[in-house]
Amino acid sequence: MSGEEEAPTQQQHQQPGQERTPDEPPPSPPAAAPSSSSSSPAAEEEPLSCRALVLTGYGGYDKVKLQVKTQRRARLQAGEVLVRVKACGLNFAELMGRQGLYEPLPAPPVTMGMEGSGVVEAVGEDVEDRRVGDRVIAMSRFGMFQEVVVVPADRTFPMPEQMSFEEGAAIPINYLTAYMMLFEMANVRPGKSVLVHMAAGGVGIAATQLCQTVPDVTVFGTASASKHETIAQGGVTHPIDYRTKDYVEEIRKISPKGVDIVLDPLGGSDTQKGFNLLKPLGTLIVFGAANCVTGQKKSLLAMMKTWYNQLSLNTMKLMQTNKAVCGFHLGYMAEDQLIDRAMRELLELYRQGKIKPRIDSCYHFEEVADAMRRMHDRHNIGKVILLPEPKKPGENVEKTEAADNKTKEEAATEEVKAEKD
Amino acid sequence: MSGEEEAPTQQQHQQPGQERTPDEPPPSPPAAAPSSSSSSPAAEEEPLSCRALVLTGYGGYDKVKLQVKTQRRARLQAGEVLVRVKACGLNFAELMGRQGLYEPLPAPPVTMGMEGSGVVEAVGEDVEDRRVGDRVIAMSRFGMFQEVVVVPADRTFPMPEQMSFEEGAAIPINYLTAYMMLFEMANVRPGKSVLVHMAAGGVGIAATQLCQTVPDVTVFGTASASKHETIAQGGVTHPIDYRTKDYVEEIRKISPKGVDIVLDPLGGSDTQKGFNLLKPLGTLIVFGAANCVTGQKKSLLAMMKTWYNQLSLNTMKLMQTNKAVCGFHLGYMAEDQLIDRAMRELLELYRQGKIKPRIDSCYHFEEVADAMRRMHDRHNIGKVILLPEPKKPGENVEKTEAADNKTKEEAATEEVKAEKD
Repeated sequence: MSGEEEAPTQQQHQQPGQERTPDEPPPSPPAAAPSSSSSSPAAEEEPLSCRALVLTGYGGYDKVKLQVKTQRRARLQAGEVLVRVKACGLNFAELMGRQGLYEPLPAPPVTMGMEGSGVVEAVGEDVEDRRVGDRVIAMSRFGMFQEVVVVPADRTFPMPEQMSFEEGAAIPINYLTAYMMLFEMANVRPGKSVLVHMAAGGVGIAATQLCQTVPDVTVFGTASASKHETIAQGGVTHPIDYRTKDYVEEIRKISPKGVDIVLDPLGGSDTQKGFNLLKPLGTLIVFGAANCVTGQKKSLLAMMKTWYNQLSLNTMKLMQTNKAVCGFHLGYMAEDQLIDRAMRELLELYRQGKIKPRIDSCYHFEEVADAMRRMHDRHNIGKVILLPEPKKPGENVEKTEAADNKTKEEAATEEVKAEKD
Repeated sequence: MSGEEEAPTQQQHQQPGQERTPDEPPPSPPAAAPSSSSSSPAAEEEPLSCRALVLTGYGGYDKVKLQVKTQRRARLQAGEVLVRVKACGLNFAELMGRQGLYEPLPAPPVTMGMEGSGVVEAVGEDVEDRRVGDRVIAMSRFGMFQEVVVVPADRTFPMPEQMSFEEGAAIPINYLTAYMMLFEMANVRPGKSVLVHMAAGGVGIAATQLCQTVPDVTVFGTASASKHETIAQGGVTHPIDYRTKDYVEEIRKISPKGVDIVLDPLGGSDTQKGFNLLKPLGTLIVFGAANCVTGQKKSLLAMMKTWYNQLSLNTMKLMQTNKAVCGFHLGYMAEDQLIDRAMRELLELYRQGKIKPRIDSCYHFEEVADAMRRMHDRHNIGKVILLPEPKKPGENVEKTEAADNKTKEEAATEEVKAEKD
């Protein structure tokens, strides 16, 4: 990481029309994305000033700019709601998107962000089940990193009373991904074993919690040693330090026959290893290619290595081993019904106290580079949250104990970085 | 089919030592196979005469010979039982094995057969849960096509009282395959849709019946038109004549988004089609390569075509489509615990009247060529059974109404064949 340029995020002012808004159909795939203005010609009076995190080009952290868009407040279309965003979830997809490695994100300039929570400020015609003042979770293919968004009402989900905005913003991507992989694709049942890579990450923690809802499920979780205590408390049966040990060997020592389910966000040679670790009737689910992301900018070498080591499959091999290989990516899921059902189920599990997002840290929009760096360097335990509200003078970044659990080495690395900023 | 040599099966007499017995470890993979004699040196008095169907080399129907082995009756090993076989199930694997296309079958000479039913005639030491006189289903990797077999007691399953020997012999391979695919791999749930190829075959009928145990499951089943009435009665929601229609088009007409589960015993280009037919979160399970078997003997062209058209997968494609691809083959399943649990469940479903094997026809051992031809030509609706007992003079082959449902064309083809025999 050292040696790369890092520019602090500067607040910029931007006029409408300079940036791709979701109203222009993105080149691929069809998006149900929010907009801070509607294209309706019948605009209303009050002008709308809106801070937004805009990807201005592919590259390092400096490509994500905080811009202030000043737009006329447009009338909502039928079925839409206007949400004042209180918290957004940062995802690995945005780190990849910044490097030009995330296909569902339209080309820059584009407002990033796939999930958030906030308060309904206005409702369009034909919206019956949302009211002004409702606290909601909102989802979108992109465009959530802004103070005010317009989304279809059916892409919002009322938040349980006891849920904080930070928790609400941490639910959709991580928990839907974990839920659909474990219960729609892999069919976790009592007695099964699951390998969760990056067990301290957002999906990792969600998957671990969801595994706890089924009796007698063994979770092998990889994470650096400093995070083991936390993930063990969270339900990981066997934490494994992937930095100092071969996780395949460690798992074989405990379970010589391997595991029933592997959740693989890494790609490349780890997919091969995961496939080999499967028991008969076992399921490997690939849901990312984190191995592609090494430095701050797109690395052709890392991509080639990941592609070269990609699992190549033929059905004969699958038959001879009785194994299943699946791919999952919420960004390519256009099935709203499936998503709705899973969200309802997840919010019910939250109400019952069976799941609870772990917030690693919260960063204001102007600190997005720090937020992305924290995630890139895998310092987070749980979800990294972005707050649209400007940072108050003298306010420090909220951190959980995760930050204090760092190894000395990690802390030293961060100090060096801090000096450079 | 015409133009190929067909030699009627001749009864041959064979002495011990001429044929591979399962006591010699087969070259691949380790087999839990029955033997008509044990290698124990402490042999008992009474000599044992045993009719067996032996594959004598790879090729056409004439390579399967009915032989009479005369062997000393050996003492059972601990944990073994001796079963007098009353009925055996014929499987597509044996048709492939005859052509040298089924790897789990050891090289000829070898007694074929993976499933049967009969009566326990003797039990070895340490066998506590089987008694002389018990009616049991028996499974093995090969060697079941003989009058008397020795198998480990734990590879036998007591038959429900109302179950016939023919039904018992029809259960293991077809129903375990269907059960494990639908419930272990694919997780069929209410509201799902399933494409069952060869819906009038053994696995097809088993899969259709098992789908009925879950509410509101739609079954698309391919079969030739003459079988549609029967499979519709058996639970196929939409029978499709794959001979005269494009099944992909037919399914898209009814369900434009495709299906949730495809069970694919065909391989080659049908696997590609099946993959494309899957809805998001859908599962394709390949469990055979019937497209490899065209004529009576191994066809390099058919094999090459099947291999060439084999689905080649990369995990990126799976992620972008949110799909799962699995392989299943009972012949490669060494997990006895999983098989035991599934068998117990299946026998319970039989007791409850929820599943019932459909016996297409029964052939005596000496008629094995006719039995294989019936299956090869896809004339069967349900299971083809082999009977070890010699055919009585004047006895006709038992046929179900399936035989009478033949199209005129099919009947004409058979007449031509009968004249040639």
